Amino acid sequence: MLYIIGLGLGDERDITMRGLEAVKSCEKVYMEAYTSLLSFGLDSHGLSNLEKLYGKSITLADREMVEEKAHHILEEARHSHVAFLVVGDPFGATTHTDLVVRAKKMGIHVQIVHNASVLNAIGICGLQLYRYGQTVSIPFFTDSWRPDSFYEKIHSNRTMGLHTLCLLDIRVKEPTLESLARGRKTYEPPRYMTINTAIEQLLEVVQEHQQPAYTEDTQCVGFARLGSDDQTIVAGTMRQLQMVDFGAPLHCLVITGNTHPLEEEMLEFYRCRT
Amino acid sequence: MLYIIGLGLGDERDITMRGLEAVKSCEKVYMEAYTSLLSFGLDSHGLSNLEKLYGKSITLADREMVEEKAHHILEEARHSHVAFLVVGDPFGATTHTDLVVRAKKMGIHVQIVHNASVLNAIGICGLQLYRYGQTVSIPFFTDSWRPDSFYEKIHSNRTMGLHTLCLLDIRVKEPTLESLARGRKTYEPPRYMTINTAIEQLLEVVQEHQQPAYTEDTQCVGFARLGSDDQTIVAGTMRQLQMVDFGAPLHCLVITGNTHPLEEEMLEFYRCRT
Repeated sequence: MLYIIGLGLGDERDITMRGLEAVKSCEKVYMEAYTSLLSFGLDSHGLSNLEKLYGKSITLADREMVEEKAHHILEEARHSHVAFLVVGDPFGATTHTDLVVRAKKMGIHVQIVHNASVLNAIGICGLQLYRYGQTVSIPFFTDSWRPDSFYEKIHSNRTMGLHTLCLLDIRVKEPTLESLARGRKTYEPPRYMTINTAIEQLLEVVQEHQQPAYTEDTQCVGFARLGSDDQTIVAGTMRQLQMVDFGAPLHCLVITGNTHPLEEEMLEFYRCRT
Repeated sequence: MLYIIGLGLGDERDITMRGLEAVKSCEKVYMEAYTSLLSFGLDSHGLSNLEKLYGKSITLADREMVEEKAHHILEEARHSHVAFLVVGDPFGATTHTDLVVRAKKMGIHVQIVHNASVLNAIGICGLQLYRYGQTVSIPFFTDSWRPDSFYEKIHSNRTMGLHTLCLLDIRVKEPTLESLARGRKTYEPPRYMTINTAIEQLLEVVQEHQQPAYTEDTQCVGFARLGSDDQTIVAGTMRQLQMVDFGAPLHCLVITGNTHPLEEEMLEFYRCRT
């Protein structure tokens, strides 16, 4: 049996009772380390909170390990109970569909334990979830690589009056250029895109378009550490949010479409006061 | 302090540890009764499972009560800890924004405890969540009232190759016409739209359009009791799903847009075999 268990967004207390029961029944516990486990501790302290709660040791599984050793994990799941822990919901921002497909093809029973993800937790700002269009991802620009396919999606959403959730890039365990050249793996330090960088890139891209999908006066909502005790949520124009220090990652950004009065009333509580 | 606590989708074991701690700290516990609390028991049995787990008695709050007595609930929250329990996520399919706005205006501290909602749990079928467009609601048609604003939204989504989540109508505590006339409140039995009815209405509406947004051969995914132990998920054409008995409520329906190979692979496991 393979359990894929969502941990929610905050800390170890955000697991559901159903999830906790499942972890406790497992002989082996893996935890994905390739999206984000900041609030559960990239440091050893946070992780040991989870281990203490579960009474189990946890094996961190980065993307490489899941890709290279999936067969090993699945072989274990064929004969015993194995938990694969995922920050947020198993099918939230990141997908674990591939692991599920492989397990099912091997005839392994898969159980999913759902939890909150960024996709629904952003509802806390008051913008109605059914008034969102397609979610976009904003990747880090480099000198030579500036993919802007998010622009057309934001444009479509705003044309229809819909809000847009922008997920911001996370770079964890990226091999250094040097290590790629030498064939020996060393890694860049992890990078998490801030709301400030995202807005900078958004405003850069919009300049190339004649009919701008948004301007620096467009109303947005910035979220940092959503679902944690110290979450920060600020509503304001792009220009205003660009001046806000949101603190530690993870950040995400919502670009508003047309807003209803009740949405406006709720946004008031988060309004930037600069 | 007002806690608004998501209960998740399945049963009493889907509350998070953070949520359970919060409920246990409260002097008064309300539970919304106006979207759905089927799996927690519309019968007294399910509800007492919750009460047993929490060690508290729960006051069911239907829409009328929340609208009429919100002030009373909020007055209590001014002086003590009050929990308001919500199926799914507090800001999932239904909104509790109004209650939050009123509380904040009264200076009451509000804490949200997130959980899974239909909006992210549908990820289990393998269709990627960032490839969904706007969510639509399909209301029960009557002889004289056939609102079809969902059609244009599905059309936009499919034009962009996006999937569409259709939330199906729930009618709980609807006053009878007779009671409205007499000024004495009696209620219709609760009604929950089935996938079969939703498809019937979808196919009826599409006939009025020259360039159909979908046909009876369009691939869909039907979900019943999503997140429960006995959930049913079936992928197939509208025509196929119309013949499937999905059983007890709640149902929802996804109309696919363009699908990727990995999405197709995952849908295979749920494919209708008729």
